[in-house]
Amino acid sequence: MKTANQDIRPITTKINEKGNIEIGGCDLTELAAKYGTPLYVFDEETIKSMTSSYKDAFKQYPNISMMFAAKAFMTKAICRIMAREGFGLDLCSAGEIYTAKSSGFDMKKTLFNGNNKSYEDLVYALECGMETISVDNFYELEELNRAAKSKNKTIKILLRITPGIECHTHEYIQTGHLDSKFGFDLTQTDEAIQLIKSTYKNINLAGLHAHIGSQIFEKQVYYDEVEVLFKEIKRIKDRHNIELTEINLGGGLGIKYTEKDKPISVYDIADTITKAIEVYSKEYNVSLNKIYIEPGRSIIGTAGITIYKAGSSKQVPKGRKYVAADGGMSDNARPSLYQAEYTVEIANKPKAENTEKVTIAGKHCESGDILAKDIMLPKIEPNDIICLHTTGAYGYSMSSNYNRVLKPAAVLVNNGKSDIIINRQTFEQLCESDNIPDRLN
Amino acid sequence: MKTANQDIRPITTKINEKGNIEIGGCDLTELAAKYGTPLYVFDEETIKSMTSSYKDAFKQYPNISMMFAAKAFMTKAICRIMAREGFGLDLCSAGEIYTAKSSGFDMKKTLFNGNNKSYEDLVYALECGMETISVDNFYELEELNRAAKSKNKTIKILLRITPGIECHTHEYIQTGHLDSKFGFDLTQTDEAIQLIKSTYKNINLAGLHAHIGSQIFEKQVYYDEVEVLFKEIKRIKDRHNIELTEINLGGGLGIKYTEKDKPISVYDIADTITKAIEVYSKEYNVSLNKIYIEPGRSIIGTAGITIYKAGSSKQVPKGRKYVAADGGMSDNARPSLYQAEYTVEIANKPKAENTEKVTIAGKHCESGDILAKDIMLPKIEPNDIICLHTTGAYGYSMSSNYNRVLKPAAVLVNNGKSDIIINRQTFEQLCESDNIPDRLN
Repeated sequence: MKTANQDIRPITTKINEKGNIEIGGCDLTELAAKYGTPLYVFDEETIKSMTSSYKDAFKQYPNISMMFAAKAFMTKAICRIMAREGFGLDLCSAGEIYTAKSSGFDMKKTLFNGNNKSYEDLVYALECGMETISVDNFYELEELNRAAKSKNKTIKILLRITPGIECHTHEYIQTGHLDSKFGFDLTQTDEAIQLIKSTYKNINLAGLHAHIGSQIFEKQVYYDEVEVLFKEIKRIKDRHNIELTEINLGGGLGIKYTEKDKPISVYDIADTITKAIEVYSKEYNVSLNKIYIEPGRSIIGTAGITIYKAGSSKQVPKGRKYVAADGGMSDNARPSLYQAEYTVEIANKPKAENTEKVTIAGKHCESGDILAKDIMLPKIEPNDIICLHTTGAYGYSMSSNYNRVLKPAAVLVNNGKSDIIINRQTFEQLCESDNIPDRLN
Repeated sequence: MKTANQDIRPITTKINEKGNIEIGGCDLTELAAKYGTPLYVFDEETIKSMTSSYKDAFKQYPNISMMFAAKAFMTKAICRIMAREGFGLDLCSAGEIYTAKSSGFDMKKTLFNGNNKSYEDLVYALECGMETISVDNFYELEELNRAAKSKNKTIKILLRITPGIECHTHEYIQTGHLDSKFGFDLTQTDEAIQLIKSTYKNINLAGLHAHIGSQIFEKQVYYDEVEVLFKEIKRIKDRHNIELTEINLGGGLGIKYTEKDKPISVYDIADTITKAIEVYSKEYNVSLNKIYIEPGRSIIGTAGITIYKAGSSKQVPKGRKYVAADGGMSDNARPSLYQAEYTVEIANKPKAENTEKVTIAGKHCESGDILAKDIMLPKIEPNDIICLHTTGAYGYSMSSNYNRVLKPAAVLVNNGKSDIIINRQTFEQLCESDNIPDRLN
């Protein structure tokens, strides 16, 4: 069954009677006029469609925990939506913990990931009521035990391992291969377990965690990942007489940025994982109490778009035509960082013929600030509304104030209504951390 | 004469009697303890040394305007320092204008750059008292004339041209070549000038502006740039009977990130430019009232370092050793963005022998979050203070809240004193723009 991550556009996308693109029942040109640009727009129906697909596809596992990978998009409002959808949160910093906690999220349903959690971070996680930590390395085991001891608690952990699986994805976002900053190598788990048994009395090892990459388009890697985890659980049982009952499969399901991308359905992933669990639970005689999955991009990526106002343009003689948007690498780092490609439309003339090859430039003082290169579009005029699709994941979350450009607002649209979930940054906020020491006065 | 941009370390760098690195008379380990980590540290003496070098090297030009390229590092405190040093500011957004203005900067000494200034930006610049705009394209000419007219003003402009000079630098930071989003192609200046003469009555064309790239290590490009500008001024005089008397040469002087880099002295650049001006002012019979230069990175890059606390580490069997810092791509995007390399030292053991090849990883949930790859260092232990040199430019200015990691503080050090110039971001500030719409309650 097809799922929303397999389309470029949010599921509510329409062309309305004015001939403009409408998402969640809201005309994008009207949103631009009301809230200004650049503007992140999130379609609630698409988010719900994805969370529902995950829940439905995995419904045979009553003990599955769906953890939204907050690094993809983190605000208090998304925490509220995830709570309503019955999702937990995969958190990876004190700032993410703070955001979740202050949104009123049930912290029992969160999990703490990351390769360098500090002692202070770990204490903070415990104080906030987190009950599961994915431990990444030996140093963290020691620090977490110390933190738990100081709080007179025993804390449940998963050991993050590097399963040695490589994904066919951009170099920067491969995490499952052996040369990774993350997790225990499989040759190191014995030592970790011995330390837990002998020394770390405030740690309760419940299972294993792996993450095999990002923007993944193939099923086999998930199948292989399940095997690696089950095999290791069996090995640990035989060697250490410890029965691990939880696995965390991480996230990584891809979305469709352009027509070139062929992401797979959540149902296909669920079938693959289900089959692998059936096969390997028998083969290795392992039975699980809990499975975690951590989708991020696939939940929020397709739901989000960014709209910009077109400004200046430049025709290089016998060369490129540049059209400038009123945002750029400060609101979307992915084109500069990963040479990421996007699908672009003009919200006020989606049906016009694509007659020009243009490059959408950002407004930053940097040649590399290009949002989309050499794409076919209708003729763009100043004040046209440029729509970049699939910016919901890692758009706002990686945003900066480069060139002291203000961070955009974000709205949640649904059924013709739009609500602000992130207020546009103000000049005062931009400078609020600036301090002029007395001696410079 | 050697200038501070030709060294990796700030000019006040010492190893003190405790065996720790000291900058501006401040022990880096003490700064870490006092202000926390990650911490940006700026050495005021190095900044002053660079501003003084520029002033001295170009002293034969009484009408030179040194404009600090604020995009490299922009806070109210740096505006104050630049004002004291007699520098102007090269600004490229409304946010930069706001910061300068609210620091009390004399806005007559600022210049507005950028490829997509909006009408609102231009009006704001005029309202703030800016007197020089570098106009990038036809659309901006029209918008600026409209803005100036609405304010009943005539505004002085430079036309930014693309001089067609390529620099041997990273693809992303080449801006002078013909295929650029910036500026007027030389075949377009005639049309621009005709429009100014015939239609844009509120615009006063005073000169030309070019920018040939970034992190430049060669003199010849500046020589060539002067020729292109003078030749074009001559051509414009002959063709349109307009005498242009100002040129803006942009910035781009390189700094030394690692031993591989061989940046040139400010004096060498000044000599080159001086010679070129002598030669071409005669050849093309052009005399100037004003020269602008816009150094950014070379003023602030070497003055700034980032200190981190070492945390976890991971030895990949038969592979890399990773040591994690308590910051990463959120406080320094350059390694991920440009594969930038840095020189690293351990502030509490700078004299220890380099015995290990390590990779300094950041703390973000992303494999690409690496600060320095495969570098030789002494054995690093947790809580060691890792010092990344030459992060003063484009470190803070490109910083993000990726993974909801807080932006670091910055201190200015001088003569044993340290003063906060950027306060560390707080959790409350992190979430201050978050809004939960009523219907999610």
